[in-house]
Amino acid sequence: MGLITLTTDFGTADWFVGAMKGVMLRVSGRNRIVDITHDIPSGDIASGAFALASCYKYYPPQTIHVAVVDPGVGSERPAIAVKTENFAFIGPDNGLLSLALETETIQQIHRIENEELFCQPVSRTFHGRDIFAPVAAHLGRGLEFSKIGPPQEKYTRLPWPSIGRRGNDIVGEVIHIDRFGNAITNIAESMAPSDIALSRVTLPDGKLIPLKRFYQEVADGEPLALVGSCGYMEISINRGNAAEVFGLSVGSPVLVSE
Amino acid sequence: MGLITLTTDFGTADWFVGAMKGVMLRVSGRNRIVDITHDIPSGDIASGAFALASCYKYYPPQTIHVAVVDPGVGSERPAIAVKTENFAFIGPDNGLLSLALETETIQQIHRIENEELFCQPVSRTFHGRDIFAPVAAHLGRGLEFSKIGPPQEKYTRLPWPSIGRRGNDIVGEVIHIDRFGNAITNIAESMAPSDIALSRVTLPDGKLIPLKRFYQEVADGEPLALVGSCGYMEISINRGNAAEVFGLSVGSPVLVSE
Amino acid sequence: MGLITLTTDFGTADWFVGAMKGVMLRVSGRNRIVDITHDIPSGDIASGAFALASCYKYYPPQTIHVAVVDPGVGSERPAIAVKTENFAFIGPDNGLLSLALETETIQQIHRIENEELFCQPVSRTFHGRDIFAPVAAHLGRGLEFSKIGPPQEKYTRLPWPSIGRRGNDIVGEVIHIDRFGNAITNIAESMAPSDIALSRVTLPDGKLIPLKRFYQEVADGEPLALVGSCGYMEISINRGNAAEVFGLSVGSPVLVSE
Repeated sequence: MGLITLTTDFGTADWFVGAMKGVMLRVSGRNRIVDITHDIPSGDIASGAFALASCYKYYPPQTIHVAVVDPGVGSERPAIAVKTENFAFIGPDNGLLSLALETETIQQIHRIENEELFCQPVSRTFHGRDIFAPVAAHLGRGLEFSKIGPPQEKYTRLPWPSIGRRGNDIVGEVIHIDRFGNAITNIAESMAPSDIALSRVTLPDGKLIPLKRFYQEVADGEPLALVGSCGYMEISINRGNAAEVFGLSVGSPVLVSE
Repeated sequence: MGLITLTTDFGTADWFVGAMKGVMLRVSGRNRIVDITHDIPSGDIASGAFALASCYKYYPPQTIHVAVVDPGVGSERPAIAVKTENFAFIGPDNGLLSLALETETIQQIHRIENEELFCQPVSRTFHGRDIFAPVAAHLGRGLEFSKIGPPQEKYTRLPWPSIGRRGNDIVGEVIHIDRFGNAITNIAESMAPSDIALSRVTLPDGKLIPLKRFYQEVADGEPLALVGSCGYMEISINRGNAAEVFGLSVGSPVLVSE
Repeated sequence: MGLITLTTDFGTADWFVGAMKGVMLRVSGRNRIVDITHDIPSGDIASGAFALASCYKYYPPQTIHVAVVDPGVGSERPAIAVKTENFAFIGPDNGLLSLALETETIQQIHRIENEELFCQPVSRTFHGRDIFAPVAAHLGRGLEFSKIGPPQEKYTRLPWPSIGRRGNDIVGEVIHIDRFGNAITNIAESMAPSDIALSRVTLPDGKLIPLKRFYQEVADGEPLALVGSCGYMEISINRGNAAEVFGLSVGSPVLVSE
């Protein structure tokens, strides 16, 4: 039995994901399919990469992670399957897989080119259904990795906003706004100040907010920064929506001072 | 093991789909349930019919497709189960199943009237839970089709916008706006001009756009028409939202000239 | 094989639910996971409680119902697992489980404190992934209930709006607006007038609407009250959105007169 996860920007209002699942189950009814999310903003490769990187490692070994955020579909952009020590990853080679791959030990990378595996006729606009779904399903039922296509050495890496230093201060930026309005930054837990009681975070409008460990350390409606569940510092309001209140969006700069 | 798909307008914010799944799993825990979509616009039978028709055939043989967009629930409108050469379809007999059925070889149609199969007491407002779900689940565990209720000859067909001709031009209309803002028309691939390089599509505002094979044949932000993944011509913008930019909605006329 | 349902306010746009499912499948790949809903309004415990109470009982015996609407996550609020005659319930002890538990025969309540079951390191903001998911999965694969943590006697009950009487009239209020705009009240079927033909419902603006059995007993666009599929009286418009048209929201008073 293969376990296959899906991370896409296909939304849930159309039949796109339903078609992918049909194709996968037609290849093997024993495959098990789990949705991570289909609500990646349309064409937003960085957002899809971050979602996948934030949860792929919670899955059992041998899980096959399929990600499709693919604005270049139909053009000559390559598609890849990557075998790591623990997982397989399948998707367009446009950076979507790269944040996850950077923390994995890579064993094999193959271009997806074996047309015998595809759902024919292959459309020019929906490789999720016609290429990625059937290839994942064949892997799930035991296909040898090398049968997918010719090996390649590298994969496309996403430019990732780097952390700056200004004296003792750390300069990062917002990389994701979650459903609760928490603004997740690129400042990893390992960079966070060790003495959080003395630390402050400065928002773009100059507002200073305290660094805490969990939401209820501040009163309802009060702001805080904390290390969130994916290991990055985030800006929050206890029982509130920090992104809305502070006008934060992806790219907003954040400064941490000890 | 029965494989059951669900296409409804119940949304995902309430417990409606969760209740249907509970009922199905209580009939048999071996049934497998896959969501196609629950975000059909409320009461929009044509939209539900198009979603189902666009993906049902990607599923394995014997799949049981349940569709519930049912503004007449509780009244005397009949409910039907239809066995075709490849699949079973279950839903209200209001046209919802008809686009899919038109491309299938029908073997049996039965009215759903065997109350022993229902989840009692049957509500007057939620036959998805009380009738369609348990009947599908009983079929999934092997119920004989004829036990569902008395046979009938026909099913309700949905009026489907017809294609017009104006000289050599084809006059169609938009039948669906997808999540990416692509405006899918009723012009099937078989009607599309053979020489796409010479062809143009005229939008309601008089704008002419070229016919292409895939998005990236035009620059980012540029419009195109192409045959989409469900086999119909659609109006798109490469990395853009054609429906928004051109004000297209279901029913908008589209003219194809060679 | 354990059957586990999920009712949360995590939304579907992020990877939160995907992470929970990964954790559960890593504990045991034989667990089966079903979504009830993840679109409970952020932090709205009453709404989550009502969704769970409205559908949990349709599931097979031994189903494990996990609910996470948890604005107090990371603080000292307890988390509980409750065994009833038919089901298990897992979640924060903040009232979220209480509407369902009130209609169940309770056998055991245990605080969730056995850290050996948790996904380590436990974050301070995402107990859905780190505590509730793995505990549910361990139960699903047969963990003895008493291993979860020390027993406790009671659970937190949600204040529930009470029904008033004004002479022969019943005074209730709206407790949920569903996806179709139906305004579900706290007036249970058992309190509804026996002679519905003589009964009327008064809305906050003074408008009188008739009590009926199903939508199509009134013309399209006409209002009605009826007993809905979860056993409570609701205010509806046949093929319309009653909450929008009449300005109804959670808490709006409704009066039933015979």
